[in-house]
Amino acid sequence: MAKAGETSRQDKQITAADLGGLPLALADITAAAAIIRGAVAVTDCNPSRTLSEICGCNIWLKFENHQFTSSFKERGALNRLQALSSEQRARGVIAMSAGNHAQGVAYHARRLGIPATIVMPAGTPMVKVENTRRHDAEVIISGQTLEESGAFARQRGNAQGLTLIHPYDDPLIMAGNGTVALEMLEVAPGLDTLVVPIGGGGLISGMAVAARSLKPELRIIGVQAQLYPSMYNAINDEQLPMRGDTLAEGIAVKEPGRITTEIIRKLVDEIALVTEDEIERAVATLIAIEKTVVEGAGAAGLAAILAAPDRFRGRNVGLVLSGGNIDTRLIASVLTRELAREGRLTQLAIDIPDRPGRLAAVASLLAEAGANIIEVSHQRTFSDLPAKATLLQLVIETRDKAHLEEVMVRLGAAGFKARL
Amino acid sequence: MAKAGETSRQDKQITAADLGGLPLALADITAAAAIIRGAVAVTDCNPSRTLSEICGCNIWLKFENHQFTSSFKERGALNRLQALSSEQRARGVIAMSAGNHAQGVAYHARRLGIPATIVMPAGTPMVKVENTRRHDAEVIISGQTLEESGAFARQRGNAQGLTLIHPYDDPLIMAGNGTVALEMLEVAPGLDTLVVPIGGGGLISGMAVAARSLKPELRIIGVQAQLYPSMYNAINDEQLPMRGDTLAEGIAVKEPGRITTEIIRKLVDEIALVTEDEIERAVATLIAIEKTVVEGAGAAGLAAILAAPDRFRGRNVGLVLSGGNIDTRLIASVLTRELAREGRLTQLAIDIPDRPGRLAAVASLLAEAGANIIEVSHQRTFSDLPAKATLLQLVIETRDKAHLEEVMVRLGAAGFKARL
Repeated sequence: MAKAGETSRQDKQITAADLGGLPLALADITAAAAIIRGAVAVTDCNPSRTLSEICGCNIWLKFENHQFTSSFKERGALNRLQALSSEQRARGVIAMSAGNHAQGVAYHARRLGIPATIVMPAGTPMVKVENTRRHDAEVIISGQTLEESGAFARQRGNAQGLTLIHPYDDPLIMAGNGTVALEMLEVAPGLDTLVVPIGGGGLISGMAVAARSLKPELRIIGVQAQLYPSMYNAINDEQLPMRGDTLAEGIAVKEPGRITTEIIRKLVDEIALVTEDEIERAVATLIAIEKTVVEGAGAAGLAAILAAPDRFRGRNVGLVLSGGNIDTRLIASVLTRELAREGRLTQLAIDIPDRPGRLAAVASLLAEAGANIIEVSHQRTFSDLPAKATLLQLVIETRDKAHLEEVMVRLGAAGFKARL
Repeated sequence: MAKAGETSRQDKQITAADLGGLPLALADITAAAAIIRGAVAVTDCNPSRTLSEICGCNIWLKFENHQFTSSFKERGALNRLQALSSEQRARGVIAMSAGNHAQGVAYHARRLGIPATIVMPAGTPMVKVENTRRHDAEVIISGQTLEESGAFARQRGNAQGLTLIHPYDDPLIMAGNGTVALEMLEVAPGLDTLVVPIGGGGLISGMAVAARSLKPELRIIGVQAQLYPSMYNAINDEQLPMRGDTLAEGIAVKEPGRITTEIIRKLVDEIALVTEDEIERAVATLIAIEKTVVEGAGAAGLAAILAAPDRFRGRNVGLVLSGGNIDTRLIASVLTRELAREGRLTQLAIDIPDRPGRLAAVASLLAEAGANIIEVSHQRTFSDLPAKATLLQLVIETRDKAHLEEVMVRLGAAGFKARL
């Protein structure tokens, strides 16, 4: 089992021959840049002083979460749509996606007057369905998994003569996405490392071709969620399991692309795997420090650096914040859990004798210690305490772990048995 | 009592004579722009297509929450510090603030090698104390209110020969802050309305002088929290009460500045008051749509537009997102409350007969209706139901209000008495 922050291999020496044999070349990406110019945002790419201090390297952030549909997916989608013949445009396109690709295709198809059908699996959050419908796409809910939805989309596309817009395994998609690297190196030519999330691999493969053509010595590190190490498995000939719910659902892809895998094998130095805790922490850090909202997949790069800062020490690192489509309920839950991890929000259980004044005593003690009581519940029936005792459950807010410890010591000194 | 969105007066005609007699002139602001250049960020000023659609006017956002210390306050602070004599620099400065002014002064004082003392009232959140100490300022906790801290700072400054850096009532502070308007009008010369939060008035007064000098017909609207209508009272000769906890603590100022009041009286067209609900909704909207984290005071402008969109219909509106220093616990709570308002998160109470299988029946019914159960609690002892009944309390997630209604109808049809 790969541990968090574990990576698969070391720096690659790239030659012109390596680049020459690939299904994608720098010229495709510069052509894509010209094609999408004006219709896709050239997002900010800014250094972050505070994140750089925290991580011990020089971090530049590329804000793809500021695209109109809040992800880089528009780049590939638009480049692909612009390559359609007028007959193909008239017939329309079909795509399968539960998320960012759906919105990218739907938005630019409408702009270009191309009818778009989007197939989404059952259970896709209504917010994403609505965001896609808002761009006038026809949304079909079909299939229990992305794979089943994909099969349905291919079938429906063939039957109705619609062109399938694949989310990643298509050189035009990869070329469009690769423009992210051109923009980053233009603003920050001193970058020596790029850290890029990997789902199907369409973003990192395009970026790797662009970046290593311009700067062969540049190091490229891909990041996957530990729960979905599909590209990691493909590249390293491993069979790590893929399962569960990840906050980074945008990169929870079970089948990596064929073309993307070929490019990643040749041009990407390492693939890091990050845990859910690390992804959550990265999302919370970007909100607290950068004041920016990034979805789990978009925070995977920062998660990899926070998990293993030594690997990046002193380097000039470009991080792609690939998207910002995260439900506000998830944001609230991620922030609350991070507060708990930091020792700022804590659930306490205290056994107290069942007689008047004891709750008041606990409450005053906490107030004197500067702890804030957020929730209280009294438990009698189901505790395993004697009949004359009672269980007091509290959620308290403290400044940090040291403060929490001080509060625990005070409770102990006053004779209360408190458990975390 | 002023209602939300209520404003105090209508468009002003401004002449050169009006501007001539003021304690601040355009030249002071352009001079400040030159002085702070390179040390304070020229933040983005971008149009927001989605907010424009929602509000029915053309909205440009000025991202002052992206400053290094996450607020516009650096502008005034640096301009003020740069005006100190070398003797004053050697002796040091003192400032009173529980928030953004503290960080702005501390950060730039350290950059310039000026010793800084910051006085904060008791109860200032530890995060803010730490953020200020991180810039090597000496932090003194003194006074129960901002007014008491201010008195202490003046006294200590006099005793030790420290120069007091006032948070707003100082032409150099106002001139520095006014540079926000210069940058906005340079990027978006077509703006015809500026919406600016008001605490002591140091931001809007500087911006008003800059903007109305360059574009006399431009409309300027100030926004205060309804709980702290201090400038509204001063300008309109009213005595609305000031009290309570506001999410917009950055503009909860009880005593407006003398100089700022004079300028606002002459140059600002209206002051809108916004409720806590409106401020919360604006913070949540900026996170959900713009993917940006703004504190309550920084969202006050959007709150005013969302509360009374008709007043802005068709106009080209520049909104200052003045700061981003908001505790992550507050963000989580604001987002959760917004979900409740939208009908996406709901607390239900259901009376069920106390016999096996009834909880299962409710749970299956909710599952079939597509509602997600987030929390459950069973209440027996304290309900006012007969001994054989029990009270089931649920928090459920639904898609929207229509979906919630559908769920309620289904519960009713199955014989469950459910209350919101």
